Amino acid sequence: MGFKIAMIGAGAVGTYYGAKLAHAGSDVHFLLRGDLTEVRSNGILVRGEGENFRVAKINCYNSTKEIGPCDLVIVALKTTSNHELVDLVPPLLHERTMILTLQNGLGNDEFLAEHFGSEHVLGGLCFIAVDRHSKTEVERYDYGLIILGEFGRPAMQRTQQVADEFIRAGVKCSVTDDLALERWRKLIWNIPFNGLSIVAGGIDTGVIVNDENLRQVALDLMNEVIAAANKCGHALPNDAWREHMKRTESMSGYKPSTLSDWEAGKPLEIEAIWGEPLRRGAAAGAKMPRTEMVYALLSKLDHDRRMAAP
Amino acid sequence: MGFKIAMIGAGAVGTYYGAKLAHAGSDVHFLLRGDLTEVRSNGILVRGEGENFRVAKINCYNSTKEIGPCDLVIVALKTTSNHELVDLVPPLLHERTMILTLQNGLGNDEFLAEHFGSEHVLGGLCFIAVDRHSKTEVERYDYGLIILGEFGRPAMQRTQQVADEFIRAGVKCSVTDDLALERWRKLIWNIPFNGLSIVAGGIDTGVIVNDENLRQVALDLMNEVIAAANKCGHALPNDAWREHMKRTESMSGYKPSTLSDWEAGKPLEIEAIWGEPLRRGAAAGAKMPRTEMVYALLSKLDHDRRMAAP
Repeated sequence: MGFKIAMIGAGAVGTYYGAKLAHAGSDVHFLLRGDLTEVRSNGILVRGEGENFRVAKINCYNSTKEIGPCDLVIVALKTTSNHELVDLVPPLLHERTMILTLQNGLGNDEFLAEHFGSEHVLGGLCFIAVDRHSKTEVERYDYGLIILGEFGRPAMQRTQQVADEFIRAGVKCSVTDDLALERWRKLIWNIPFNGLSIVAGGIDTGVIVNDENLRQVALDLMNEVIAAANKCGHALPNDAWREHMKRTESMSGYKPSTLSDWEAGKPLEIEAIWGEPLRRGAAAGAKMPRTEMVYALLSKLDHDRRMAAP
Repeated sequence: MGFKIAMIGAGAVGTYYGAKLAHAGSDVHFLLRGDLTEVRSNGILVRGEGENFRVAKINCYNSTKEIGPCDLVIVALKTTSNHELVDLVPPLLHERTMILTLQNGLGNDEFLAEHFGSEHVLGGLCFIAVDRHSKTEVERYDYGLIILGEFGRPAMQRTQQVADEFIRAGVKCSVTDDLALERWRKLIWNIPFNGLSIVAGGIDTGVIVNDENLRQVALDLMNEVIAAANKCGHALPNDAWREHMKRTESMSGYKPSTLSDWEAGKPLEIEAIWGEPLRRGAAAGAKMPRTEMVYALLSKLDHDRRMAAP
């Protein structure tokens, strides 16, 4: 309510949540660059169960200088583009700007804190199955929940205000006092499923849980992540894998975002999802042999493809 | 000398060693089936450093019944075709026939022993880089050594006689009193390099040892195999990986046989190289998390490709 919001990153997640906020009347300003002309002409179409709407008028810009200072900057760039934020974010800041990263994995909060001051930084975990079909159309297949928290602090009054802004737009949103714990809890899923979906040959979550060997590897990876989180001081229960496995079994086969990136020829978020958790786990004395292997394989596959690209 | 020899399996290994023996005047009889006409017309051409020769006249047959009882049956089929041996081998046997498997991995000695009697069975480990370019041409790139042993027994007089037959044909050949130990020692190499060459996207050994992450994974896999061998009662020294790594670094990039199989669309020798070692390791209480992952990934990749094949 009354927030001036910038949305940085117009992939599936940024486009979906930005359009939801804009549709509800929030004051959202999109940085779009390459996609600007089409979105300006056509708006954004959102599809999904229980929601089919077009936001005809999108405030879009090809420079953050044109947007100017905002109350809330939502970062939905791929983590592989984080270096761009160093120049993109400053024109959006005033003294009390909140910078909310909706990005995957670990290290993004710290990156923003280091460059812009930790007091500005919030993080959000998105539990959503969403694809961008074109520059002007996204489709949500399942879920949509965001869990919001402050970087290195319990939730504050402003955290709930941001959550309320999402809730008003019809997005399920809850607030946590322990963002770091929730990041690790989400990794229990991302580390096995995003990784195996690629290294096992381009398969969705349904195929993984229905293959006896891969299902066991996924479970073993989950247990590595839980043990590493605990070593790092984030108290996840030993059976924290159970809710993830149950949810994965109940949904029809889903392509993790990293597999979508792979199929689209985009760089993979390897450091955020595997590299940084491995480094933190190793520093805390955790053993993560399976995660190390996934990291090594993905790094090589990603590197070779970028070298082969025209 | 004076052995009547049957060669079963005319891939790169069988064709190379069979042609070497035939060239030296050994009494070799090839089971060829599909390749019979071409080989009968053209013989076999062998190329390699220090050897370039054609064996013009090859004794070849499309049925083992036509070959009849032999003194030495050399099995060089892919392990994925072992079930065919149940019918192929009996016509080749007399009371004292030696059946020598030159196949990869674990379980082949036992398979032959179970079907034909353990007293007949010998095993050989081939250290050779060889490709079959066509039905009538093989090229050796490096090595060629065979280590021969008896199944479940120390070497006997006949073991040395078989070695002498190879040595007479210009093949380096030594005899071991502990075949099972040597099988595990070879797996220290095959388990990492044959596996990673495929799951890391189709790369040779040179690429693996020059990629920091994959090299570490290869080392970790080697240590898993050494530890498992020890748990299984085969005393490999803890630094047994060193000779393998040194040899691998010194050779130019080499495609492991499993990668050649993969590229040729052939089934992969997954159970012999990964499955059986895993089962034996697990039964002895060894932890092999990385090997399990390679096994799971290869099994899925192989299965999906066979399902997709026309």
